[in-house]
Amino acid sequence: MFGTQLGTAIDVGAFFIKGEFFMEIQINLDHKSYPIFLGENTIDKLQDFVSDTKKYFILTDTNIPEYLVSKVQSYCKQSTIYKVVPGEGSKSFATYKEVCEACLAYGMQRSDVLIALGGGVIGDLGGFVASSYMRGISFMSIPTTTLSQIDSSIGGKVAINLDHVKNIIGAFYHPDAVFIDFTTLDSLPKRHIQSGLVEALKAGLIHDASLYEIFKQDNYMDQLETIVYKALLVKKAVVEQDEKESGLRKTLNFGHTIGHGIEAYYDLKTYYHGECVALGMLYFLDDPTLQQQVKTILQNMHIPVDVDYDIQEVMQIIAKDKKAKQTHIDVIRVDVPGHSYIQALELSEIQQLIERSHHEK
Amino acid sequence: MFGTQLGTAIDVGAFFIKGEFFMEIQINLDHKSYPIFLGENTIDKLQDFVSDTKKYFILTDTNIPEYLVSKVQSYCKQSTIYKVVPGEGSKSFATYKEVCEACLAYGMQRSDVLIALGGGVIGDLGGFVASSYMRGISFMSIPTTTLSQIDSSIGGKVAINLDHVKNIIGAFYHPDAVFIDFTTLDSLPKRHIQSGLVEALKAGLIHDASLYEIFKQDNYMDQLETIVYKALLVKKAVVEQDEKESGLRKTLNFGHTIGHGIEAYYDLKTYYHGECVALGMLYFLDDPTLQQQVKTILQNMHIPVDVDYDIQEVMQIIAKDKKAKQTHIDVIRVDVPGHSYIQALELSEIQQLIERSHHEK
Repeated sequence: MFGTQLGTAIDVGAFFIKGEFFMEIQINLDHKSYPIFLGENTIDKLQDFVSDTKKYFILTDTNIPEYLVSKVQSYCKQSTIYKVVPGEGSKSFATYKEVCEACLAYGMQRSDVLIALGGGVIGDLGGFVASSYMRGISFMSIPTTTLSQIDSSIGGKVAINLDHVKNIIGAFYHPDAVFIDFTTLDSLPKRHIQSGLVEALKAGLIHDASLYEIFKQDNYMDQLETIVYKALLVKKAVVEQDEKESGLRKTLNFGHTIGHGIEAYYDLKTYYHGECVALGMLYFLDDPTLQQQVKTILQNMHIPVDVDYDIQEVMQIIAKDKKAKQTHIDVIRVDVPGHSYIQALELSEIQQLIERSHHEK
Repeated sequence: MFGTQLGTAIDVGAFFIKGEFFMEIQINLDHKSYPIFLGENTIDKLQDFVSDTKKYFILTDTNIPEYLVSKVQSYCKQSTIYKVVPGEGSKSFATYKEVCEACLAYGMQRSDVLIALGGGVIGDLGGFVASSYMRGISFMSIPTTTLSQIDSSIGGKVAINLDHVKNIIGAFYHPDAVFIDFTTLDSLPKRHIQSGLVEALKAGLIHDASLYEIFKQDNYMDQLETIVYKALLVKKAVVEQDEKESGLRKTLNFGHTIGHGIEAYYDLKTYYHGECVALGMLYFLDDPTLQQQVKTILQNMHIPVDVDYDIQEVMQIIAKDKKAKQTHIDVIRVDVPGHSYIQALELSEIQQLIERSHHEK
């Protein structure tokens, strides 16, 4: 299933329990292990992980359907709900402080637990609060978007933003358990779902050709569960080998250097994260035929592939980006589906690459 | 040198290099090791730890003598100095954000380094910035007070305050090296020096009778270097065995439960941290003779032993304190010098203990 450099994962599986089908992936890090459950109604498995003697701080946003919030709360004997405004704006210092104050006001102690119920913003914000409140309390995650299911379930990257620089303040901090419940996607707008799947397409391109192949099929959406599952297996293999991003994990940044630049250029508002990553990937596919194939896939996914921006300004944003180290930036390139490599390029070389690509259009 | 439960440390020693005498203690944790240098002019050893290709963000406060700041900067080819207002008020969210913004403005990257030059506030604030900026950059520490030399050099507890609750937001994060330079104490007020030494007296009482014995001598101040060194050996042994404070490390909180309460009661202003810890210790010395002996030692150190406060209010503060878990609090008690034990007491039992002690005066 994997490219040779990733090895084979054995601690994963699919199960039927009480007539309900679900998949489980165990994440094994040096200092922590935790399970990810995938399936319909996996939220119900939360009841195996809660304790009547602990307090639960349920962090969510006002977009999350009330029945989901109530369902989560129904499993916790002692709990409080805290809702933030949906969107990237809540990954601010101000909201971070407010959530910490709310934890304090609710009397959260070291042994209590934060539950992050929502998309990437809730996971990132909630994870950072959990990592720092009393120098670290437990948290569990219920990601409700394709993006957060694929991208934030594994890896422990939690963060907030500072002055429009994304994820500049944060920690590496892992949940006790993740519940990926596909029924939570029911109310998610189609554009949101597709944009999140770009991260799975990315996972396929860099490390798993079989995952990439699914996206070439017209009915790929019928295989959503498999897509998310396979994308998580890629991420599991990468993160278990290189948690702190000293080498291999950098490949997960495929498309992100330019992607973040474009996202920031549009003030994090016009285009979704996945849409920007998609644009960022196109420049770093070595083979023109593969590039055309990926473009067709993206068009099928209704991801915009022709987006205007000022290259000079995007490059300036990239230069300030946290992944920029001295004059060179490690960019990820894909030669064939399922295989990627890291290359250190100067900013000017990256700019040339983009300009040439724009010219060829 | 240690109580039996602590074992013997072997990776410590004293050296002469270029005619300069210094001591070195190596801290060995599961995931990180780092050296602590103690002596006169150990700041000069900084030059062995800096790189011309890295940027150094020197965090300090306006109380630190200019010659020290210049000395540190002279060893860094690329550096900036950022000064905050002295005092506990700088461990705020607002200052935390400002320092993060300053790191960003200076273009600090993941491989760059923060240097914390100052007392406990600078170490706590700087350490938390380092732990979270870009999800963690390196930091080095130059503690300039007896309190920070003894208490913050080992253990990795970094934190800021929230709404008058001390150290409620933070991380476990360790420096790359610590330089304890006794010449930095030259300009420190005597009250500040003595208050910090209470943490060493505490270390002696809980785990090292030979350290406690030093304080019984009139000329104990002539042995300042030995006191700091021995106190660090106690902390090294404790933290290496229990970094995250699940058991043994709790003994380091001796005197702190009540101490923090009294400190907060006086709005962190009237009495110093060490002075409050001293008061807090007295209640938990089982032997009345020992209690009297410690009182005499504290009086020799010019630490106030008769402080008025409203017990009810202090207890309410303690109930909200981060170490309070459910209805019981783990308090540390000392039966004989060098030996301590943990006891879970109800808040009401603690209050009775204090009231009885007040009554006996």
